[in-house]
Amino acid sequence: MSDHETPMVNGVVEHKIGEEVLPFVEDEYGGVIVEMTTPTDPKCFEGFRYHHAEPTYLMLVYWIPESESTIPLNASHRVRVGAVVLNHNKEEKYGLLRGSGVWKIPTGVVDEGEDIFAAAIREVKEETGIDTEFLEVLAFCQTHESFFVKSDLFFICLLRPTSFDIQKQDLEIEAAQWMPFEDSASQPITHKNELFKVIHRICSLKMEKNYTGFSKKPTTTFFDDKLGYLYLNKQDMNNPIT
Amino acid sequence: MSDHETPMVNGVVEHKIGEEVLPFVEDEYGGVIVEMTTPTDPKCFEGFRYHHAEPTYLMLVYWIPESESTIPLNASHRVRVGAVVLNHNKEEKYGLLRGSGVWKIPTGVVDEGEDIFAAAIREVKEETGIDTEFLEVLAFCQTHESFFVKSDLFFICLLRPTSFDIQKQDLEIEAAQWMPFEDSASQPITHKNELFKVIHRICSLKMEKNYTGFSKKPTTTFFDDKLGYLYLNKQDMNNPIT
Repeated sequence: MSDHETPMVNGVVEHKIGEEVLPFVEDEYGGVIVEMTTPTDPKCFEGFRYHHAEPTYLMLVYWIPESESTIPLNASHRVRVGAVVLNHNKEEKYGLLRGSGVWKIPTGVVDEGEDIFAAAIREVKEETGIDTEFLEVLAFCQTHESFFVKSDLFFICLLRPTSFDIQKQDLEIEAAQWMPFEDSASQPITHKNELFKVIHRICSLKMEKNYTGFSKKPTTTFFDDKLGYLYLNKQDMNNPIT
Repeated sequence: MSDHETPMVNGVVEHKIGEEVLPFVEDEYGGVIVEMTTPTDPKCFEGFRYHHAEPTYLMLVYWIPESESTIPLNASHRVRVGAVVLNHNKEEKYGLLRGSGVWKIPTGVVDEGEDIFAAAIREVKEETGIDTEFLEVLAFCQTHESFFVKSDLFFICLLRPTSFDIQKQDLEIEAAQWMPFEDSASQPITHKNELFKVIHRICSLKMEKNYTGFSKKPTTTFFDDKLGYLYLNKQDMNNPIT
């Protein structure tokens, strides 16, 4: 599978139908891009296949060479966050999931263009009204076919509250409250579900300062100097190189 | 933003055009799914918008209520891996990127349904012919608008070689070789690029056993008991809870 850094032939190419040539501009990969401005006879797009669609457009591609297509795949993952918020009394902030009887940590989908740490802060605010500061990604989990054919990346984040008055806001949540850590750990679902158990084990260790997750650090990417956030073990980064 | 665990009204609904009703089945969220088996007049889909497309289908949705749509977004992230392979001589395995003069660690896009650790092993094999064992995610980086409007998650993985003879296979790679760690760190790009610098700093620490990334652990997910992999600080997980 090719990635973005490598030279690539784009599959959107000049395509003749009879004597007609679709209007196009050349791209940087040796292919061409057909820009549609007026409705065109669907027959012109014979041989094309769907690549991806967003609310406002549908992209079709056509790979001409005999070789295997190296057109990059469409986005493959949905990204979600779960937020553990611990206050000084070793209480976790929980929301009661409507109709389920289960107290759960705030969770939600990361919006398009949103940073993981920002999504965790937003979800806690939306579900409980509490302001928080991001500390660490404690762990993450990858599963497949969780959303049509797409995969799921679930980042478990630890946050520190900067306000304490709960104002339940989200419709999906029946109630929100600070819950003593021991009570949340003793919910039946915590014992039944392996991921819940691991999260509680990590939180127990964290309260004793015996666990290090990944903190965030602004950075620029490999080739295009795009701004982004790197998540890494910052505590160990301060270790001396001997 | 709603996530998958919460009750949700699906936007694909019964839709009348004149006296005609599109054939549908009810879904579990109080909406309906229109299954197309024969070509239908496009006019029937007035009011619908694109949701997403894969090579073999295009999905349209229509949100009927006055309230804001809670239809989950399409997949938002492309996932890539970069693989650092260190042998016992403290040499890293590098590929020379065709035409660029830059020696780079093997990188590539995670395939649909592929685990992060498996993608790292595959990329090293494809680019150099070397077999490896996954050790840890050392860090990860999130950037936005790296692929159309989509975001990018780049996982930097550490692997241990289980074979040593290089057989360059990938067309994108001009050459592949084991390179002394110091030489790879002294490439001009390493000094210019912040992410390169951080990776080298982490590798230096790692060689002295002074850095802990996230190792993998098979697990089941929150609600649907789906199998997945959790990535977490396993070394700290062995700490005692006092």
